[in-house]
Amino acid sequence: MGDYFPNVKKINYEGPDSKNPLSFKHYRADEIILGKTMAEHLRFSVCYWHTLKNMGADPFGPGAIIREYNHSSDPMTVADQTMDAAFEFFAKLGVGFWCFHDRDIAPEADTLAETNKRLDTIVAKAKKLQADTGIKLLWGTTNAFSHRRFMAGAGTNPSPDVFAYAASQIKKAMEITCELGGEGYVFWGGREGYDTLLNTDMGRELDHLALLLQMAVDYKKKIGFTGQLYIEPKPKEPTKHQYDFDSGNCYAFLQKYNLVDHLKMNIEANHATLAGHDFCHELEYCAANGILGSVDANRGDLLLGWDTDQFPTNLYDTAQAMYIILRNGGFTTGGLNFDAHVRRQSIDTDDLFHAHIGGMDAFARGLKIAAKMIEDKAFEQAVTERYKGWSGELGAKIEKKQVGFEELEAYTLKHGEPKIQSGRQELLENLLNEYL
Amino acid sequence: MGDYFPNVKKINYEGPDSKNPLSFKHYRADEIILGKTMAEHLRFSVCYWHTLKNMGADPFGPGAIIREYNHSSDPMTVADQTMDAAFEFFAKLGVGFWCFHDRDIAPEADTLAETNKRLDTIVAKAKKLQADTGIKLLWGTTNAFSHRRFMAGAGTNPSPDVFAYAASQIKKAMEITCELGGEGYVFWGGREGYDTLLNTDMGRELDHLALLLQMAVDYKKKIGFTGQLYIEPKPKEPTKHQYDFDSGNCYAFLQKYNLVDHLKMNIEANHATLAGHDFCHELEYCAANGILGSVDANRGDLLLGWDTDQFPTNLYDTAQAMYIILRNGGFTTGGLNFDAHVRRQSIDTDDLFHAHIGGMDAFARGLKIAAKMIEDKAFEQAVTERYKGWSGELGAKIEKKQVGFEELEAYTLKHGEPKIQSGRQELLENLLNEYL
Amino acid sequence: MGDYFPNVKKINYEGPDSKNPLSFKHYRADEIILGKTMAEHLRFSVCYWHTLKNMGADPFGPGAIIREYNHSSDPMTVADQTMDAAFEFFAKLGVGFWCFHDRDIAPEADTLAETNKRLDTIVAKAKKLQADTGIKLLWGTTNAFSHRRFMAGAGTNPSPDVFAYAASQIKKAMEITCELGGEGYVFWGGREGYDTLLNTDMGRELDHLALLLQMAVDYKKKIGFTGQLYIEPKPKEPTKHQYDFDSGNCYAFLQKYNLVDHLKMNIEANHATLAGHDFCHELEYCAANGILGSVDANRGDLLLGWDTDQFPTNLYDTAQAMYIILRNGGFTTGGLNFDAHVRRQSIDTDDLFHAHIGGMDAFARGLKIAAKMIEDKAFEQAVTERYKGWSGELGAKIEKKQVGFEELEAYTLKHGEPKIQSGRQELLENLLNEYL
Amino acid sequence: MGDYFPNVKKINYEGPDSKNPLSFKHYRADEIILGKTMAEHLRFSVCYWHTLKNMGADPFGPGAIIREYNHSSDPMTVADQTMDAAFEFFAKLGVGFWCFHDRDIAPEADTLAETNKRLDTIVAKAKKLQADTGIKLLWGTTNAFSHRRFMAGAGTNPSPDVFAYAASQIKKAMEITCELGGEGYVFWGGREGYDTLLNTDMGRELDHLALLLQMAVDYKKKIGFTGQLYIEPKPKEPTKHQYDFDSGNCYAFLQKYNLVDHLKMNIEANHATLAGHDFCHELEYCAANGILGSVDANRGDLLLGWDTDQFPTNLYDTAQAMYIILRNGGFTTGGLNFDAHVRRQSIDTDDLFHAHIGGMDAFARGLKIAAKMIEDKAFEQAVTERYKGWSGELGAKIEKKQVGFEELEAYTLKHGEPKIQSGRQELLENLLNEYL
Repeated sequence: MGDYFPNVKKINYEGPDSKNPLSFKHYRADEIILGKTMAEHLRFSVCYWHTLKNMGADPFGPGAIIREYNHSSDPMTVADQTMDAAFEFFAKLGVGFWCFHDRDIAPEADTLAETNKRLDTIVAKAKKLQADTGIKLLWGTTNAFSHRRFMAGAGTNPSPDVFAYAASQIKKAMEITCELGGEGYVFWGGREGYDTLLNTDMGRELDHLALLLQMAVDYKKKIGFTGQLYIEPKPKEPTKHQYDFDSGNCYAFLQKYNLVDHLKMNIEANHATLAGHDFCHELEYCAANGILGSVDANRGDLLLGWDTDQFPTNLYDTAQAMYIILRNGGFTTGGLNFDAHVRRQSIDTDDLFHAHIGGMDAFARGLKIAAKMIEDKAFEQAVTERYKGWSGELGAKIEKKQVGFEELEAYTLKHGEPKIQSGRQELLENLLNEYL
Repeated sequence: MGDYFPNVKKINYEGPDSKNPLSFKHYRADEIILGKTMAEHLRFSVCYWHTLKNMGADPFGPGAIIREYNHSSDPMTVADQTMDAAFEFFAKLGVGFWCFHDRDIAPEADTLAETNKRLDTIVAKAKKLQADTGIKLLWGTTNAFSHRRFMAGAGTNPSPDVFAYAASQIKKAMEITCELGGEGYVFWGGREGYDTLLNTDMGRELDHLALLLQMAVDYKKKIGFTGQLYIEPKPKEPTKHQYDFDSGNCYAFLQKYNLVDHLKMNIEANHATLAGHDFCHELEYCAANGILGSVDANRGDLLLGWDTDQFPTNLYDTAQAMYIILRNGGFTTGGLNFDAHVRRQSIDTDDLFHAHIGGMDAFARGLKIAAKMIEDKAFEQAVTERYKGWSGELGAKIEKKQVGFEELEAYTLKHGEPKIQSGRQELLENLLNEYL
Repeated sequence: MGDYFPNVKKINYEGPDSKNPLSFKHYRADEIILGKTMAEHLRFSVCYWHTLKNMGADPFGPGAIIREYNHSSDPMTVADQTMDAAFEFFAKLGVGFWCFHDRDIAPEADTLAETNKRLDTIVAKAKKLQADTGIKLLWGTTNAFSHRRFMAGAGTNPSPDVFAYAASQIKKAMEITCELGGEGYVFWGGREGYDTLLNTDMGRELDHLALLLQMAVDYKKKIGFTGQLYIEPKPKEPTKHQYDFDSGNCYAFLQKYNLVDHLKMNIEANHATLAGHDFCHELEYCAANGILGSVDANRGDLLLGWDTDQFPTNLYDTAQAMYIILRNGGFTTGGLNFDAHVRRQSIDTDDLFHAHIGGMDAFARGLKIAAKMIEDKAFEQAVTERYKGWSGELGAKIEKKQVGFEELEAYTLKHGEPKIQSGRQELLENLLNEYL
Repeated sequence: MGDYFPNVKKINYEGPDSKNPLSFKHYRADEIILGKTMAEHLRFSVCYWHTLKNMGADPFGPGAIIREYNHSSDPMTVADQTMDAAFEFFAKLGVGFWCFHDRDIAPEADTLAETNKRLDTIVAKAKKLQADTGIKLLWGTTNAFSHRRFMAGAGTNPSPDVFAYAASQIKKAMEITCELGGEGYVFWGGREGYDTLLNTDMGRELDHLALLLQMAVDYKKKIGFTGQLYIEPKPKEPTKHQYDFDSGNCYAFLQKYNLVDHLKMNIEANHATLAGHDFCHELEYCAANGILGSVDANRGDLLLGWDTDQFPTNLYDTAQAMYIILRNGGFTTGGLNFDAHVRRQSIDTDDLFHAHIGGMDAFARGLKIAAKMIEDKAFEQAVTERYKGWSGELGAKIEKKQVGFEELEAYTLKHGEPKIQSGRQELLENLLNEYL
């Protein structure tokens, strides 16, 4: 481990009255909530690409942030020092997990063989740091979207050579994820989409994407990797339109290609809103369809049309998200990965800690609020009451498929106009405010 | 037939040099394009709800339009006169099809039984007018969203009594659609969604929606209705979030509930854009997945966040849409239904004709452009060229599932960096402009 | 006063632990905050159009809500009973103010003269109810957008006869506002915009709109009305584009036509977000330019593209809005008017109370949080610290216009690269969460 | 001039039947339209930053495009070769103008003094190339947003030292623009806005921005620069909210700070749509208020929320834009600058030509269509007819301010309900299609 954040000690829980911005005010890792510790519930993960590698570049300027571990002119030295900095950061923050893309941890070399050797070097180091600290890998993934070879997609590329290259990268990325004991592996199809239909064969591209995932399922079995596979929806950006638009579109795809038993969703809050859905909609949709896997915990700006990847701080979102996750049984292989970066102006190392502390405290409060909502049953009872007709005779017959249109018409002709009841939305919204 | 549009005669083709706004400049019904008449290709349909019933009301004011057939204080007299006006309009315009909701053609009475009798009266009249004019029913549907009983949905209502009422309405609507020889039946779930997750059991609601559609599939068989069933995606409005968000979400739903053999999509241009997709994306997606059925031909305003239902006039859209439809084999049961209404300020009867003429001419031009694009093969060749690698040895092996990650890695290690080629988007966009 | 809400008594403050949904948990009218009572700070107002007149109609169905005061077939009886219900509601809720459009309180008759007589009748009643209850009029306005005569605008209408009609309505509406002791008068240009540029003379329409407002300024003086005039920005809906797009566009217009001394802004939260701004942006912009007048307190749904007019419940918004309003000196003539309506499914009279209670409690909490933020000075100090360079020698010279490009270039050449500091956004966002 | 595009010769007009993609099909520079050549009307300009410097980087990957002039490891050699390539490109394309930011043409050095020397070197070269080719500078500008020193703005920076640095850069950029005979100078405030109100003093920032512009006005006079100053609105990106949101917000700002006589608007199509306006709305608004200056001719994707800067190809937009520009008297100092870049996949040098040719042909067609619309007067007559009431007695009295509310009420009481007329939107939209 490094000493790249010398001004920051281990972040401790100091409670809500603390004025120390480098402390947790709400997150206490071992506090028991509904029978599990907060750490077990929340399974926080730091992402390598933003937290360690993002220096604040945007389309209008290069990075504004300067980090000590980036000073060498040798890329492998930078990679080595960055890994030290990473585990120093993880350990000081006190998270249990991390996530990475292959290209985050080791820079690409001139040939694939050499690139893979670089990965092996860094992975050996990461494995040792994991062992030293007890920090585990939530999931790994490959970056098959940044290099120019992937400008037209990886699995959906018009060239089978690029498809093959992507397959080779994923193979290696799955191997190192397995080597590091990763609990999952994510597919985010950064350029699996199109910029114009004028040059695109959509049907063929979708078939190819499915072939790539089927190969991954096969190879996972072959190497004995037991982690969960995830697909991460995003509607657009960088391409004009991505096939994995939202969880509904992904679910359609997985069903069509018989992949639904093998992949779950990794839901990112900001991707949900870019697709026109609330974060909670996507979570609830996945829960309802048995495909909820893991979460990229961040926050977008609904007035901006790109992925701002801000740290999650909105308590309405964290409380309602945790309420859905808890009712769905909580995380098993998944967790809350902070796919978020500090703002370009947040150039100090302290800002990096503030950002993560804020996200962790916001989800800790969300967890506590959600637990209270579950214990009180106020919302559960309101829902049960609203649907209680379905527990009656008519509802049961319909649900058991004992009646059809003719029986229902007879029922309606006999009973006349149905009674309707208030949806009580304002009452429930007020109630939610009382939990905050 | 009535005489409600006395100032307008039958609309004739007069060619592009005509200065008569009440003539077709491009649509000539019997002109042969790619082996079929324009009428056979385009299968234009007028919708009853907008063209006959919409008087320009919006959330900020009541209707501004006054029609002669609405003057009676007796609702069934209005219904009768409206049907006369409808067929007068259809015949003068020269379309082959019409569409309706049950509640458009006959007003609801105090009881379901009485409402159904009213429908029978009007349907008998419509059947005769169909026979007299040769105009056919493209599809029928039920309105299970306007009445307050459906404020919380029809198939997804928290009350099974409302579910039963909806089923009863659909039963009757399918019967009259069958009686009128309808070539299809549409489900648009106007309030099948939610306004807040706080009071909603999403999983149960989706199950119920599937039950309703399964009953419809069963009943269709029972009464020998041979038309095509369609589901019409829309992401939101009136509810905050509708389950049938887009064709991808609908396709996921149909697959999950084993309904995919029974329903195709009815794609509405403005619904596509509200969901964050291009109209053409939705068409191409449906074509790629074998679920393209029919089209609600209109146009939204991408800077406005609601369904503006404007008449289609954009030649880029009509040309590209027809290019996809033609390559998919053209319409079979479906057609181009103008789910569009004149602007609130377009208060003259002539405006109603201008609007439809403009839409028909725009699609006629789109058809001719698309046919030329197909004949020239310029776009087809560009796509073929771009994907030609997939017709080579490596591509074939991948598509036939003869290789996996290991073989592809070996290939990549051997062949090195793939060659990449320009996507040529600007060239193709320029080319498209030359067809306009 | 009426007895239309018999199940609800006067709403009292019962504190945060109360389980009674028909009580205030945070709003205590006479509690002193920063030297003034909560009632004096917040100046809550109920709007007539939504709270009394909105029955839940939307573009997809008529109203779902049934109120006792609407049962008569005589429109003036309905108007009379509605006014009784209104003051019963205002009094039970305990607000200090109400707002109305002329057409909300009295239905239009066959002639303007008769319509104005109806207004006189109802205004006399309202004046008495005001005197009986002590409830005051925050502002009045005219509805010059619902009737078909205004389909193409009022002040911006292509016909001067419609302009004249609008002027006549405003004249009367200003008179009755004055008669009722109104503290303000609002202009919301519901159809002052265009649907297509193809038929529009924008420059002339803007000139006409200014003429109408200048006449209003003149007439205000003539009748001795001392209330504040406001203009209310909204970007679109019902028209495709409204001239009063946002406060910046309104401010440009007011300056061009020398109206800036006579009108301030009435900022509506949902209109702000439809224009692509945060609610707080619009408030801060108005504060910075000295044009902040009053507030239409509601909430939109940022994933929906229309004015949802939901009740304000988001504590982030209420706290930050009150922070800006307090720093600007608080309301003088303005207040917080609930331009919001219950959801269509909220059909019970209790829902109407829940909605307003929720909004009042949310702003009461917002006020308390904002007061604490002001007392603690944490945010103020962060801002002062960030800009402290401007209190130094160079900053002072620039602000006093003592230097130009040449002096600044000399300074830069001498001093070299400026030091930059973190924007500390995450720290401040965390801090804000600690106030909630 | 260089030889960096050896495969492309001078682009010539070959007419609409040419199959040569490297020819103009519609743009013929010396063709006379409404008394001026196409070149004089359209005043096409190529921008340096996109056309020469953009290699296709986006937030998800580095550039994919490789250009011959970028191969040197010495930045000034690259700058020199790029300038050669630039004029080769301009000359082969046949445009009359170019535009640049200071930092596009010469890379920043370690000190401002050294940076300015580099600029002098390159500017001398550019001046010679201008003389050799006859190509002129449409406008210059400074880049005061990419370097980390400007991360919190230039004129609105919390540090006066950064303000001073920005002033120094603008000083030099104005000098070199003057040296090169530039016909204008643009201010685009790339980071003149905020990311969070929590750390922002909006009022003070706006005052400072005005001070910077006032200094520029003064310095322009001092050095005898006679070009037009422009401000370029953009609502957001890179910041969360930019002060120059749209032309209305800019106009309000210019009026408040007495700058309206000194700056006009540079309207960018994609910025307009990001602000929720049509491109044509912004043009018409500027024309109506006398502030229309120049145009950044590009195209956005209305389903994407960021500045895609695509080349303009939509004929509806080019025709309607030219119609407004022609009616406003045409360009004087301004022109059509292609602030647009090829898509990331368009990696060939030919693509760069296709893109510009497509944009020029699209505006050439737009010009011809607009000229025909003006000659035919069909739209002008429709507008005149619609507003003809304002040429009557009542209209004239209102416009001359001879009447007020009392006279208008008397008029209305006497004349009763105004007649209303159809807006004829569909008719006009159909008519527009006939011009395409």
